[in-house]
Amino acid sequence: MLFDSPSTFGRAFRILSFGESHGPAVGVVIDGVKPGLPFDLAAIQQELDRRRPGQSDLVTPRREADRVQVLSGVFEGRTTGHPIALVVFNENQRSTDYQAIADLFRPGHADLTYQRKYGLRDPRGGGRSSGRETLARVAAGAWAKQQLAALGVTVRGFNREIAGIPCSKVDWAFVEANPLRVADPAAFDAQRAAVEAARAEGDSVGGVCEVWLEGLPVGLGDPAFGKLDALLAAACMSIGAVKGVELGAGFGSARRRGSENNDPLGPGGPLKNDAGGTLGGISTGAPVVVRLAVKPTSSIARVQQTIDRDGRTAEISTRGRHDPCIAPRIVPVAEAMCALVVYDAWLTQQALREGSLAEAPEWDWEAVEALLRAKL
Amino acid sequence: MLFDSPSTFGRAFRILSFGESHGPAVGVVIDGVKPGLPFDLAAIQQELDRRRPGQSDLVTPRREADRVQVLSGVFEGRTTGHPIALVVFNENQRSTDYQAIADLFRPGHADLTYQRKYGLRDPRGGGRSSGRETLARVAAGAWAKQQLAALGVTVRGFNREIAGIPCSKVDWAFVEANPLRVADPAAFDAQRAAVEAARAEGDSVGGVCEVWLEGLPVGLGDPAFGKLDALLAAACMSIGAVKGVELGAGFGSARRRGSENNDPLGPGGPLKNDAGGTLGGISTGAPVVVRLAVKPTSSIARVQQTIDRDGRTAEISTRGRHDPCIAPRIVPVAEAMCALVVYDAWLTQQALREGSLAEAPEWDWEAVEALLRAKL
Amino acid sequence: MLFDSPSTFGRAFRILSFGESHGPAVGVVIDGVKPGLPFDLAAIQQELDRRRPGQSDLVTPRREADRVQVLSGVFEGRTTGHPIALVVFNENQRSTDYQAIADLFRPGHADLTYQRKYGLRDPRGGGRSSGRETLARVAAGAWAKQQLAALGVTVRGFNREIAGIPCSKVDWAFVEANPLRVADPAAFDAQRAAVEAARAEGDSVGGVCEVWLEGLPVGLGDPAFGKLDALLAAACMSIGAVKGVELGAGFGSARRRGSENNDPLGPGGPLKNDAGGTLGGISTGAPVVVRLAVKPTSSIARVQQTIDRDGRTAEISTRGRHDPCIAPRIVPVAEAMCALVVYDAWLTQQALREGSLAEAPEWDWEAVEALLRAKL
Amino acid sequence: MLFDSPSTFGRAFRILSFGESHGPAVGVVIDGVKPGLPFDLAAIQQELDRRRPGQSDLVTPRREADRVQVLSGVFEGRTTGHPIALVVFNENQRSTDYQAIADLFRPGHADLTYQRKYGLRDPRGGGRSSGRETLARVAAGAWAKQQLAALGVTVRGFNREIAGIPCSKVDWAFVEANPLRVADPAAFDAQRAAVEAARAEGDSVGGVCEVWLEGLPVGLGDPAFGKLDALLAAACMSIGAVKGVELGAGFGSARRRGSENNDPLGPGGPLKNDAGGTLGGISTGAPVVVRLAVKPTSSIARVQQTIDRDGRTAEISTRGRHDPCIAPRIVPVAEAMCALVVYDAWLTQQALREGSLAEAPEWDWEAVEALLRAKL
Repeated sequence: MLFDSPSTFGRAFRILSFGESHGPAVGVVIDGVKPGLPFDLAAIQQELDRRRPGQSDLVTPRREADRVQVLSGVFEGRTTGHPIALVVFNENQRSTDYQAIADLFRPGHADLTYQRKYGLRDPRGGGRSSGRETLARVAAGAWAKQQLAALGVTVRGFNREIAGIPCSKVDWAFVEANPLRVADPAAFDAQRAAVEAARAEGDSVGGVCEVWLEGLPVGLGDPAFGKLDALLAAACMSIGAVKGVELGAGFGSARRRGSENNDPLGPGGPLKNDAGGTLGGISTGAPVVVRLAVKPTSSIARVQQTIDRDGRTAEISTRGRHDPCIAPRIVPVAEAMCALVVYDAWLTQQALREGSLAEAPEWDWEAVEALLRAKL
Repeated sequence: MLFDSPSTFGRAFRILSFGESHGPAVGVVIDGVKPGLPFDLAAIQQELDRRRPGQSDLVTPRREADRVQVLSGVFEGRTTGHPIALVVFNENQRSTDYQAIADLFRPGHADLTYQRKYGLRDPRGGGRSSGRETLARVAAGAWAKQQLAALGVTVRGFNREIAGIPCSKVDWAFVEANPLRVADPAAFDAQRAAVEAARAEGDSVGGVCEVWLEGLPVGLGDPAFGKLDALLAAACMSIGAVKGVELGAGFGSARRRGSENNDPLGPGGPLKNDAGGTLGGISTGAPVVVRLAVKPTSSIARVQQTIDRDGRTAEISTRGRHDPCIAPRIVPVAEAMCALVVYDAWLTQQALREGSLAEAPEWDWEAVEALLRAKL
Repeated sequence: MLFDSPSTFGRAFRILSFGESHGPAVGVVIDGVKPGLPFDLAAIQQELDRRRPGQSDLVTPRREADRVQVLSGVFEGRTTGHPIALVVFNENQRSTDYQAIADLFRPGHADLTYQRKYGLRDPRGGGRSSGRETLARVAAGAWAKQQLAALGVTVRGFNREIAGIPCSKVDWAFVEANPLRVADPAAFDAQRAAVEAARAEGDSVGGVCEVWLEGLPVGLGDPAFGKLDALLAAACMSIGAVKGVELGAGFGSARRRGSENNDPLGPGGPLKNDAGGTLGGISTGAPVVVRLAVKPTSSIARVQQTIDRDGRTAEISTRGRHDPCIAPRIVPVAEAMCALVVYDAWLTQQALREGSLAEAPEWDWEAVEALLRAKL
Repeated sequence: MLFDSPSTFGRAFRILSFGESHGPAVGVVIDGVKPGLPFDLAAIQQELDRRRPGQSDLVTPRREADRVQVLSGVFEGRTTGHPIALVVFNENQRSTDYQAIADLFRPGHADLTYQRKYGLRDPRGGGRSSGRETLARVAAGAWAKQQLAALGVTVRGFNREIAGIPCSKVDWAFVEANPLRVADPAAFDAQRAAVEAARAEGDSVGGVCEVWLEGLPVGLGDPAFGKLDALLAAACMSIGAVKGVELGAGFGSARRRGSENNDPLGPGGPLKNDAGGTLGGISTGAPVVVRLAVKPTSSIARVQQTIDRDGRTAEISTRGRHDPCIAPRIVPVAEAMCALVVYDAWLTQQALREGSLAEAPEWDWEAVEALLRAKL
């Protein structure tokens, strides 16, 4: 496109996200849908529920039903091959929470930049910059995850760190059973205590989210600007709270020697996976491992220095119901964005290659885990 | 989305890169060029020379003239408003260097994935995955840098780390005066020694490259998927050797509290710049600061385990002329990619906004530097 | 885009259309909207009303309210600069009309091709191929027309021919005052009689729709594939019933000599307008004149030969409430599509040109009309 | 949308055209190429030769070798799957021909609009608006035609009319054997005489070019804006001399009744082909038949009224070596553009559909021809 819209993501599999936090609705149009596939709205709702506020006492107590509706593209439970429009109408906005701060620019938020860029902003909340926009991503990502599952690809995430406290092992069964979506039961108590301490002090903490894409065939992704690394980086860095992305050993690889960093190759594929599942931007068949730096929630009760719309110095304390750590709710969003990238890469590959892709090699998951653990 | 074809980058300002390392030529078509602008081919050549191999004894001794030619879009020294095609013909290939390893997949390279994805690969070298493809980026980025300079925006980079040894200060005058493009004279000797030690042992080291974009107006970048953060991440992660990207405090912010991480706002803009120059993905007027994790060069003389094209176990030692550390030559590439993103954001903004963007606030560069230093 | 969706139209100003005739809703997301502009929903509704069925006894008696709702992108009556989602919920479907023919492929409709392409189709009606999809175009086009009006550009259409009977003059006041949207009161009675005769015989007739875009500056449109001619042709030929498009003298120019066909140039612009307002695909400042061949409505009561889904020979007679001539309802759709193209060209130009475009010359409308008349 | 940059065409299969008539070269980058396919440069050269000037005494006597070179994307005679850059260097420009008219705007040419849009133009000729730009299209189209041929699809064209004199039959063997590329030996003498008469009087004539795409499967093309009709219309109207496009009966259908215009359906497909091979914008398996209105060559020796760059009235007579009728050289360009559309539709379909498309029905070519003849 001469320009592509900032509300659009993807190539062969594309989504268009629309809606504001305090407007009538948030929605997404999913495009590039194959016809005749079963459409499981409940599975989409389930992913939205994972992202929803109010899931535990460690996240915001706001409760929003976030019921998703289908406007198009589905007939008698099957996709028609045409755009699927999904909408979530906004309900529980309690915009009075925001009244006191309508004229102040919240530090860490987009208030300042939206006002300057657009000449206006919705004083009731983040508007288009709100985290509610990620509803669109999770809904579309849920569809992508379903399609990938049918192809043998699983996408799942967890928090590798909370408040600087790392997980030393990955217990997948534990991840969805704890409110922080961390993976190591041994680290959970300390992580929880850190979040609670921050909340008690009107403050917030950050985390590092990690997503694994397993079961990919060899050959997804493209050269040059279409590297899987680049697509995943764009996908993840487009999430509001994310300020860094790395694949595999990531920044750690910058501090190593080549003889240590290179993954030797065996008949079944790479013998370790510091590259994070790609070589030259194309999938090797090893798990693609992405890590996202999630900043501490910008909305905090502590007093901060700021300015008002007229540029006058002021103090601000954000009193609404906010998450002391947003990382647990970022996990389903990160999974969704990664799923969008990989399903898109699959369709793209389908267009440009006659034969089928090489099968993924058998992979020794325990060894991978050991390697990943060693990397921390 | 920023890309469509994997060889294309940008929206309003677009480039198409083509060519392989051992084919006839590498080139780029620059699209979205305003008419009537002076076209300075020497300035483009100068940037290519910064990227060229053979600049010092710390990089590969291969010498390639890499002379750029104009095929279209320029008339009597001015742009016509039509696509500018630039071509560099390949000269010094010494493809015999590669003969011994034509049947082996080099660890850390795209040999394996290209063979599996495409069913064929150029055994003389990296082909499309070669670092020579970055010629296209640097040539186009040189044009973008010229346009940005005319708008008051400067783009410059350096290596923040080499082999894990950090620069504690940024001395811009030193950057282009040393072969590693590091910024701290006090750290240079140790960094150089680390590179030389690796080379002596047939090994390689990595680094962390940092790019500063200064003088941006408030308001560049877009919401949702068009965040400047996302575009820069895609741009930088599309460079072959890069495995991680962060803005501002990046991964460091994940280990902080919100009260520490948020940048308080003053009448002139953010009072510190841990956000790295964006809020909600849109420029604040503060410098945009991007860091890239550059892995150690994959081609090393040390023996590594690998497989051949038939999947049989083998050993490989890459004997060609290679850089013991690629980070110095990544600096101009990273600058180019960042320049492409920001100039594109500028043109995009020009289409969608009637008025001019808010002026960038005056910025206290010394304070910024102190803050950035403190962050390490 | 690697692929762009068939449901998307435009570059800097883009729309995404979704929805089926018998699904929950038809809608459009308008993207590339400048912020802070007054948003006039009534004006959009007014254009939808022009397209609505049931406006006279010469079109289908189906009555649909087609009330448009805003889901996003508007705050306190002004655009926010973010995507505007508009939705029309479907009401009066009377799908029982279609029951008898659910298993038959209607000649002239997309039933056959949808079934073969997608493996399924909505048997209750056209689904995505239905004329109801044009609701999305007219709603978005209404916005584009408002923006163009503010820039001094008007977009208006009429039917140049009905059932082969031409209009010899253009009386704009008459166009919206008659149910066929023809422009020549002297031809109306014969045109009306032709439509009524066809209806009485269970048959239908076609027409030629003509759109004028007046007040364009010199310089909109682009070389090569971006010619205004090409964009307008794509826009108009994407309307279901349209099988031909021409600019200016169009097919007539193919039968002339160059000395007759070329428009001489005077200080104020072209001295006649057989080129239809473009030279080299770029606007000359003269009115852009587009003509569309509208085929006779495919749904007719007369018996036609066809096949059923199993390929068996059958007869079909479409008994639903259909327009004996669809051309009157095509006029607002054609205007909308032309408006989308030109407003998009305007925004595109704004991105790529610093200065303002050359002003349109004063134009002698009577002479133009005389020339156009002579052309028939 | 089919385009983004005005120099780019296509979605999954994309081309980027660059170059000016009097610059160093004209070229094209072909993107979306499958790997491992045999690359037949001679077949591309052959198509360029069909388009070349100087083929007979009925076209311009300018002789240009127009030798095409490969810069990338091919290795040992096979495609690598990466962009193929093709270049033709400009040779015989004789720009002195143009010196006398450098300050005058040629009627029918883009001189006026380029000067106003860009603020500058190449006074030596058409620059980017020159017919030489079609070299890029023909080269890329030649590749698309080869791929389509392997899929059983043939693309071939002829002139249905010259100077208003129609061909009443289609004798394919005659088409490439006569300099006007007309299809009816019985009409040739009159057509030739018309061209020669125009040339003798320093004038020019137009024509109607017709392209047949045969062997398409059912199901290519998409709903809404992606209709095959729309894509073909854009493709053909982007050719400089083309001012109208129609499919099948085209404008003729606007003057018929539905009972006559609808194509009845039989078990093998449509029983006639007035729709021109599509229903709802999607291929029916019947031949796709496109007609293009080609205006008379704008460059004529006869004196015309015009203005100079300062807006002063002047007279102009274009004395260069020009074609008295450009339609014969438009045929290969039109074939190329249609081939690009259909091959792109094929790849797009491959991405979004699992199964293979329905096979094209057996088709009675003689009956088709009879129908087409009856339509004139």
